[in-house]
Amino acid sequence: MKVLVINSGSSSIKYQLLDMQTETVLVSGLVERIGETKGELTNKAFPGTDRQEVTRIEQPIADHNTGMLLAINLITDPDKGVIKDRAEIDAVGHRVVHGGEAFHQPTVITDAVIRAIEETVPLAPLHNPANLDGIRVAVELFPGVPQVAVFDTAFHQSIPAHAFMYALPYALYEADRVRRYGFHGTSHKYVAGECARLLGKPLEQCNLITVHLGNGCSMTAVEQGRSVDTSLGLTPLEGLVMGTRSGDVDPAVHAFLARNKGMDIEAIDAMLNKESGLKGLCGMNDMRDIHAAVDKGDPRAKLALDVQTYRNRKYIGAYMAVLGRVDAIVFTAGIGENDDVVRRESLKGLECFGVRIDAAANGQRAKEPLRISAADSSIEVWVIPTNEELAIARETKSVLN
Amino acid sequence: MKVLVINSGSSSIKYQLLDMQTETVLVSGLVERIGETKGELTNKAFPGTDRQEVTRIEQPIADHNTGMLLAINLITDPDKGVIKDRAEIDAVGHRVVHGGEAFHQPTVITDAVIRAIEETVPLAPLHNPANLDGIRVAVELFPGVPQVAVFDTAFHQSIPAHAFMYALPYALYEADRVRRYGFHGTSHKYVAGECARLLGKPLEQCNLITVHLGNGCSMTAVEQGRSVDTSLGLTPLEGLVMGTRSGDVDPAVHAFLARNKGMDIEAIDAMLNKESGLKGLCGMNDMRDIHAAVDKGDPRAKLALDVQTYRNRKYIGAYMAVLGRVDAIVFTAGIGENDDVVRRESLKGLECFGVRIDAAANGQRAKEPLRISAADSSIEVWVIPTNEELAIARETKSVLN
Repeated sequence: MKVLVINSGSSSIKYQLLDMQTETVLVSGLVERIGETKGELTNKAFPGTDRQEVTRIEQPIADHNTGMLLAINLITDPDKGVIKDRAEIDAVGHRVVHGGEAFHQPTVITDAVIRAIEETVPLAPLHNPANLDGIRVAVELFPGVPQVAVFDTAFHQSIPAHAFMYALPYALYEADRVRRYGFHGTSHKYVAGECARLLGKPLEQCNLITVHLGNGCSMTAVEQGRSVDTSLGLTPLEGLVMGTRSGDVDPAVHAFLARNKGMDIEAIDAMLNKESGLKGLCGMNDMRDIHAAVDKGDPRAKLALDVQTYRNRKYIGAYMAVLGRVDAIVFTAGIGENDDVVRRESLKGLECFGVRIDAAANGQRAKEPLRISAADSSIEVWVIPTNEELAIARETKSVLN
Repeated sequence: MKVLVINSGSSSIKYQLLDMQTETVLVSGLVERIGETKGELTNKAFPGTDRQEVTRIEQPIADHNTGMLLAINLITDPDKGVIKDRAEIDAVGHRVVHGGEAFHQPTVITDAVIRAIEETVPLAPLHNPANLDGIRVAVELFPGVPQVAVFDTAFHQSIPAHAFMYALPYALYEADRVRRYGFHGTSHKYVAGECARLLGKPLEQCNLITVHLGNGCSMTAVEQGRSVDTSLGLTPLEGLVMGTRSGDVDPAVHAFLARNKGMDIEAIDAMLNKESGLKGLCGMNDMRDIHAAVDKGDPRAKLALDVQTYRNRKYIGAYMAVLGRVDAIVFTAGIGENDDVVRRESLKGLECFGVRIDAAANGQRAKEPLRISAADSSIEVWVIPTNEELAIARETKSVLN
């Protein structure tokens, strides 16, 4: 079975074609700057293998349809293509950011499903319309091929009301569905599943804390395999300190800034999303730059690192209190997989809970899952690379079977 | 030594006169509706004793000066007064809500101190001007008597930068002092001190989590006697679920409400402060009403209780991760002292940390400190009545000695 995975943004399309028999990537690519004067497509056939072949096309790409068609032509090119005909594609899996309360799991796309995703646009005004563009193009280009929507929010729909409700007027939930949704669900679910496999236990018996630290950051409390709380909320702004996003702040900071700085809501929202987080604290949002600056004695870089890892530690403690018993803590995504300092600092002081790190293991770099807890740690700690495309392809396959 | 304690609000003055030799209250009173057409003063001489005498005066009270003068005349009344002359008052202690970064401890009031409190008005636009009114009136009525400002924020000035900094643009801290300050500091400090005494350990050796649950709610991590983190932030809105205040929400909820409901920042801020919290979730903000409704099967009252206690539990877990080792958890203030259900639910699932409640002890009502943990609990749990007036009087006395 071959599955095409599509992650459609407002001016870009990321895609991967996977052979699900071997779970190998046949081709991966990125269409960028759709609708701008200068578009670009980068296509990698057999990425990461001896046979890897990279093709780059620069030309205006008017819309998502044009972009996807360019990609399909490369994928099925008689010389460079990885398949002979687009008919070889058995299914298309789409990343959809927001499924609201309607979608608890990956779902085969029908007209009714598209309408339901459209209804969720107010909750994700930037992401869902772009995801819908990708769906419409794929439906047109692959008539008759099953299309599956895989939602970032779906894994978190098991969160109980006492954890997803904000203490706001109840009417805002009833009328406008204001509540915690959570995101990165595909990633949290994927690493939870991988972790269960590595622990040699059924996922349904595992209590885990999964820590996704990338550009966006989130943490999930997984109880008996199900998400029961997560740090991102109504939008992907709440919770941990991220690259440019603030995470938690006093919700009265908006009124303070309006009264004292004359800022309006849109300016404040833009600041909280784009000028805050690590970037706000120290001017940098790439953790490698921050470490280099810390090494040179930059106090604000150190502050940014400290604020982020301290917040991580508090959330781990909170989720321990939620779960009671924890089998493992899992770090994943760009920072989580590669930054041993962030991992070490985030776990500092948790020895009281029986968390013990093996410093040598934590210092290792690996593309494979790695246990970084000491043998006598009562809670295992793992680094598990996430793979959202593979996760979407797996979800797509399992829905269709 | 006799200390008059003044807590001056925008249209009210609460006062107590304490004899610090015996730490007994000679008189307590409340002036209400200052500046309105119908003012009121309630004065209790020797409150809670056999000699208690209550006087109520209803008349227009033009300003704080008039109100305080009425009170002083009653206190020194030849028949009903508790002292003969106002000269018997040795010191006046003032509650001041916000001390910004300028005040780490109670401070003898001078012109420079008044100016520094005035500079902090942008951080507490409702409270500090009212507190300053009380100070000015007392300076006038008691010339030559030492006046001491006791700040709600002072105890929290020991919080380190990684815990008090928000992940916002650093310039907002540099230019506008946007950071976590915390409140209820006098209460947290008082019960921490009482708890150390009850544990038979110097406060400097105690790691505590103090949980102040009243109309406002906050939690503090106390490390070696010092506040190292607290749940209220720049303002008293952040953190736990309160009577009418939301506590933590996704900071993008403001933009969502502006875009989808047409609300402006002031309307949103008013909603978060006055129409949210327990009241928002279930329409009631008195915990006794909520319990009665839960008993009748009201699902939203149950939800409100669950959301509040679940949030409490997460903060306790977070502060355990911050402190590493915890000697005791202390509940105080209206709900904390009187609501065994809230205490039990807030501690649910913490058995994994060695917290074990003695259900019989927890069910008791007492005006004295009460240990509610089981004998084999590795962390003690206490209910300790707070006494802000006594705390302010003690602070006032200790600054002057």
